[in-house]
Amino acid sequence: MSGFIAVDWGTSSFRLWLINARGETTASSRGAEGMAQCQQTGFAPVLMTHLAKVNAPGDWPVLICGMAGARSGWAEVPYVPLPAPVSALAAGALRLAQGPVLGRDIRILPGVSNPDPAAPDVMRGEETQLLGLMLLGHQGLICMPGTHCKWASLSGTAITGFQSFMTGELFSLLANQSVLRFVMPEGGHVSPEDPDFLAALDQALADPAILSEALFPIRAAGLLGYSTPVAAQARLSGLLIGAEIARMAPKITGDGVTLLGQEGLGALYHAGLIRAGHQPRLADAETATKAGLLCAAKEIWSL
Amino acid sequence: MSGFIAVDWGTSSFRLWLINARGETTASSRGAEGMAQCQQTGFAPVLMTHLAKVNAPGDWPVLICGMAGARSGWAEVPYVPLPAPVSALAAGALRLAQGPVLGRDIRILPGVSNPDPAAPDVMRGEETQLLGLMLLGHQGLICMPGTHCKWASLSGTAITGFQSFMTGELFSLLANQSVLRFVMPEGGHVSPEDPDFLAALDQALADPAILSEALFPIRAAGLLGYSTPVAAQARLSGLLIGAEIARMAPKITGDGVTLLGQEGLGALYHAGLIRAGHQPRLADAETATKAGLLCAAKEIWSL
Repeated sequence: MSGFIAVDWGTSSFRLWLINARGETTASSRGAEGMAQCQQTGFAPVLMTHLAKVNAPGDWPVLICGMAGARSGWAEVPYVPLPAPVSALAAGALRLAQGPVLGRDIRILPGVSNPDPAAPDVMRGEETQLLGLMLLGHQGLICMPGTHCKWASLSGTAITGFQSFMTGELFSLLANQSVLRFVMPEGGHVSPEDPDFLAALDQALADPAILSEALFPIRAAGLLGYSTPVAAQARLSGLLIGAEIARMAPKITGDGVTLLGQEGLGALYHAGLIRAGHQPRLADAETATKAGLLCAAKEIWSL
Repeated sequence: MSGFIAVDWGTSSFRLWLINARGETTASSRGAEGMAQCQQTGFAPVLMTHLAKVNAPGDWPVLICGMAGARSGWAEVPYVPLPAPVSALAAGALRLAQGPVLGRDIRILPGVSNPDPAAPDVMRGEETQLLGLMLLGHQGLICMPGTHCKWASLSGTAITGFQSFMTGELFSLLANQSVLRFVMPEGGHVSPEDPDFLAALDQALADPAILSEALFPIRAAGLLGYSTPVAAQARLSGLLIGAEIARMAPKITGDGVTLLGQEGLGALYHAGLIRAGHQPRLADAETATKAGLLCAAKEIWSL
């Protein structure tokens, strides 16, 4: 075979790339058929549709990372426990029995778990990005903003630790479903230069335990006419991201920190890291995903 | 007149008592027609139905506390700013123009606001319970568990300060709507003796900033088979309540702390206060509400 088909199958998105043996992307396809939707409609038909769309060579195998390997995904792939070297991730990939149906060798990469009962944690998808980052030369602490932001430690060729924060989901729940929704703007995004965002960020960086008592005043400030909806949204975001970064900043060592993704949420974490006194190295999320899938594909199929 | 009609009109509940001039309750009625429902159906018909149910004497006036006085309630009653003495609350009551429709003098008590732009806060309903508590001899810090738990300071005959925490609403959002819902039991209540509740409480009391990083591991512990749904629910509750009490415990002075309500959520706060080294005085919420309404009614109508 002269290449493989790389797939990042998340909770709410599907992305596919044809990658040749030189690591070049020759075609791609993406869709909104994430795991949540495919639980209803099936996974194989979605993959077949995208394979047809890009005229995928018939002898190329498929390597999938992300939530497709979750318990409620296409097929459950057990977590690889920490510390997780590249070789363990590749070895942990599950080959689908449905392979013949699609006429291909289809494998799903495992997630990674922290089996420490005092700090249990799991990831699915990010481990592949971390593989890619290692390949691209990143070491030390990696900040991966998202619905459940992950902070992972890379050492040599292994993922040696990680922690997940629910910051993104908390923001969404509080802004859209709590009593704070009455003082939020209709949609819109927080700007990393917003002075209310930065003030809240500083406050939570200095005193992360303030979160518990600082949320209801966002509603009260709106009721009392002290605040605008845009300011309320910025303040909520700053408090949540600041409380998170305050916990992780002390763990940034001489190796520094790499920030994966600089758009949207990534820009807010960037502002937070700067505010906490750290200048992060920057990395691109899609580049990392593709590099990680290529790295694992080389291990599995000796491309 | 030889008495008055006391009403506690909250977001999701309605309670009414006939109280004579000696402060005795002679009849009562309750329903689920809270403010949220009455925004659609109207407030006057609900009040009339309950008045008829208890055969309310025609010359008794009505005194209402709670969310009926909110901007989206029956009629907006402006907040009385801190410090709020009894006299200011009574003087701030709004007499409804609709009085003649129902043939009665109907008034709604105001809420209280903290106008400090650095710590804006509001309450509606709790101020009446605080009035009652003052009358019953309570002073110092008062803990009032609820969806938005309030901690208020009483000094002499005035409310001198308060802070609101979204702990109850956060618990509900996280347990029912976040990714943690997958590891929660179907309904059920957390027991204040549950060892997982107490362990999480201790952890958050010792390090309240841990909240941000301790939530996702509840999900991970379930996925990895380290935890039961009941333990996950208990842990979530302990972390949230512990993080709140950790912020307020340092503010408990020689006057001690009074806990309003010992059932359900109140029992969890009771356990938390004990764990933080404080033995709260206990007070009953309904008794406080009725005492507060009676106190204000005496000021308004010289009963």
